[in-house]
Amino acid sequence: MPVLVMKFGGTSVATLDRIRRAAKRVGVEVAKGYDVIVIVSAMAGETNKLVGFVSETSPLYDAREYDAIVSSGENVTAGLMALTLQEMDVPARSWQGWQVPVVTNSAHSAARIEDIPPANIMAKFAEGMRVAVVAGFQGVSPEGRITTLGRGGSDTTAVAFAAAFEAERCDIYTDVDGVYTTDPRIASRARKLDKISFEEMLELASLGAKVLQTRSVELAMRYKVKLRVLSSFEEQSDTAGTLVCDEEEVMENRPVSGIAYSRDEAKMTLVSVADRPGIAAAIFGPLAEAGINVDMIIQNIADEGRTDMTFSCPVDQVKRAEKALGEAKTAGHINYRDLVADTNVAKISAVGIGMRSQSGVAARMFKTLSDEGINIKVIATSEIKISVLIDRKYMELAVQALHDAFELEKPA
Amino acid sequence: MPVLVMKFGGTSVATLDRIRRAAKRVGVEVAKGYDVIVIVSAMAGETNKLVGFVSETSPLYDAREYDAIVSSGENVTAGLMALTLQEMDVPARSWQGWQVPVVTNSAHSAARIEDIPPANIMAKFAEGMRVAVVAGFQGVSPEGRITTLGRGGSDTTAVAFAAAFEAERCDIYTDVDGVYTTDPRIASRARKLDKISFEEMLELASLGAKVLQTRSVELAMRYKVKLRVLSSFEEQSDTAGTLVCDEEEVMENRPVSGIAYSRDEAKMTLVSVADRPGIAAAIFGPLAEAGINVDMIIQNIADEGRTDMTFSCPVDQVKRAEKALGEAKTAGHINYRDLVADTNVAKISAVGIGMRSQSGVAARMFKTLSDEGINIKVIATSEIKISVLIDRKYMELAVQALHDAFELEKPA
Repeated sequence: MPVLVMKFGGTSVATLDRIRRAAKRVGVEVAKGYDVIVIVSAMAGETNKLVGFVSETSPLYDAREYDAIVSSGENVTAGLMALTLQEMDVPARSWQGWQVPVVTNSAHSAARIEDIPPANIMAKFAEGMRVAVVAGFQGVSPEGRITTLGRGGSDTTAVAFAAAFEAERCDIYTDVDGVYTTDPRIASRARKLDKISFEEMLELASLGAKVLQTRSVELAMRYKVKLRVLSSFEEQSDTAGTLVCDEEEVMENRPVSGIAYSRDEAKMTLVSVADRPGIAAAIFGPLAEAGINVDMIIQNIADEGRTDMTFSCPVDQVKRAEKALGEAKTAGHINYRDLVADTNVAKISAVGIGMRSQSGVAARMFKTLSDEGINIKVIATSEIKISVLIDRKYMELAVQALHDAFELEKPA
Repeated sequence: MPVLVMKFGGTSVATLDRIRRAAKRVGVEVAKGYDVIVIVSAMAGETNKLVGFVSETSPLYDAREYDAIVSSGENVTAGLMALTLQEMDVPARSWQGWQVPVVTNSAHSAARIEDIPPANIMAKFAEGMRVAVVAGFQGVSPEGRITTLGRGGSDTTAVAFAAAFEAERCDIYTDVDGVYTTDPRIASRARKLDKISFEEMLELASLGAKVLQTRSVELAMRYKVKLRVLSSFEEQSDTAGTLVCDEEEVMENRPVSGIAYSRDEAKMTLVSVADRPGIAAAIFGPLAEAGINVDMIIQNIADEGRTDMTFSCPVDQVKRAEKALGEAKTAGHINYRDLVADTNVAKISAVGIGMRSQSGVAARMFKTLSDEGINIKVIATSEIKISVLIDRKYMELAVQALHDAFELEKPA
């Protein structure tokens, strides 16, 4: 029988009632003839409670113990989901990571899945079991210890199972009903997309769209797993949600698919830096070591052997960035006249695979912002994305204007 | 290095502060040179919460899923205890049942431990680890599924580890400071015993003393594991608590070591039963099938082919017993004129290995009760125990009078 993977996040299994609701959805797919692998998160709040215990006990904790502790919430949900399905006369059982086994490397708390041998679960399917409920987010290391995949890791578990079992599709049930052209809270005309390509989803995920974890999208792209994002609180249908899939399957041919934004950005400028080979490495090396997530980088045209270097990073990392650069200056590794931080900026990005083949997208974006009187502070582009930094107060206006300009409210 | 097993129950690990307190006690034993195996229960209340989830989800639950769910509380405590010890610079790690492995049979929710191979933990001790923190109450079946040992199973886990690792002693930390000559809430002169024999402890445990689980005492007796019961809330010392050990090591030579009582007993009498071979089986077979815990049984002298049969059982099983016997009568399997239930009785027991060698203990007990005007309704004796049923209103008086009569307040 064809295999379907269904993943339910923490809010979708937050109470016994919600677990029942999720189980009913699983029952519908079983009735269609699927053997189903259900991946569950911990009941909402449980993992945070356990993480709190760990932090209070041991600020610099042993990650192996952290993993053994925080993985227990998923075990509870997996057992409860299996019992709920059994109550509905659906043959089901729970599997913890080590039982499958979900083999990972030994990078505790941020482990990578290395292998999911399908034999054990397939043998149970062959015996008549219809649903394998698997505790998400966890695995077992070569040393036989419990590992976890990092926050949001249940999405990755789901995609990895879909790849290992060659599932027809991987349905991610969450508390939103799909991927939108932009945040509906900012632009009321935002439209749910029926389909989006892996590449676009990846850009949107890394730009802060909370719908899917970046790693799970990468994995789905690599193994060509059809990924569907849909709400566990809405009516079930075969066309619900958003399908994340190969570019070729996305029929829409428009330059921009979505507008993303990030509110908490900062722009930092090193004024009058000596313009010499290796200067970029000298600046960004210490920042990387300090764990600063540098995003956009702009180097001005040099004038008399000096230049200005501008970069953006999350606003809560500004203090650390200032410290790291100050130390590098004191140590004589870099030389600059001044360090200016602008903590009142936001990043707006237009994302679309259509940009590859259609020209003039950047020009249209800049003109739209200009028509609204919005000044662009930094520009960065990739093959399928254009990002700009602007004053934060214009963020909502910019998102709405760009959404209108690219006519995202209209189905293609 | 010699191995010590220390077990901490749910109230002893109920909060992070209490876990720290317990860890300090472990640290003291490590400093003495022991390699320590710590067995932990779930934080008080956790297991009940999980059992509640299961009952609400599925009244007739799959015991395999029940075990997978309710065992998770112990995993959390084990990890937290290991982290707490590490914070104190004591090399420690946690072990879940399947990791040791604690091999059990497949009787889910009431599994029996079949094997605890010491190799994995001993290898870590050899590498310098000083404490293995093991999640109590759980094991793994031959099929690779998680099992649990039944309520109070962590005591059994502790004793089984002490046997498997040939531990010098098994310390059971709980919320009372030892085994008493009787309940101090009833007899203010009750005295804590320094030592008690396995046999006596077994009788007291099955008579309702909540200090140790009966199975753990049986296991300790079979494998000659020195068991010490002590409070995790009192000062630590080498002579604290009560040592449960072989008869030969108990130096006291008195006829009675303790007085136990059970408040919630009922006496049931089948009046005028046909006195024929097989009648006892015909009566007690249906009761056993109905899950009635029959304790004392008395058969009167027969008169003209008919007799009265009296037995005791917990008062909350009276209704079920009446139903089972009524059905057996209707089906023609037994015949009696009347069934009389007295639900206002209590059981008082005197327990002591000294009874074996000293005569007159029963006579002294009966005279003491008679002197207080207490009527004895049923008597049952074993080699080291005399039990009587009396009116419940005399229960406290009887316990106090017997405690005085056998001079239990005086150290031997």
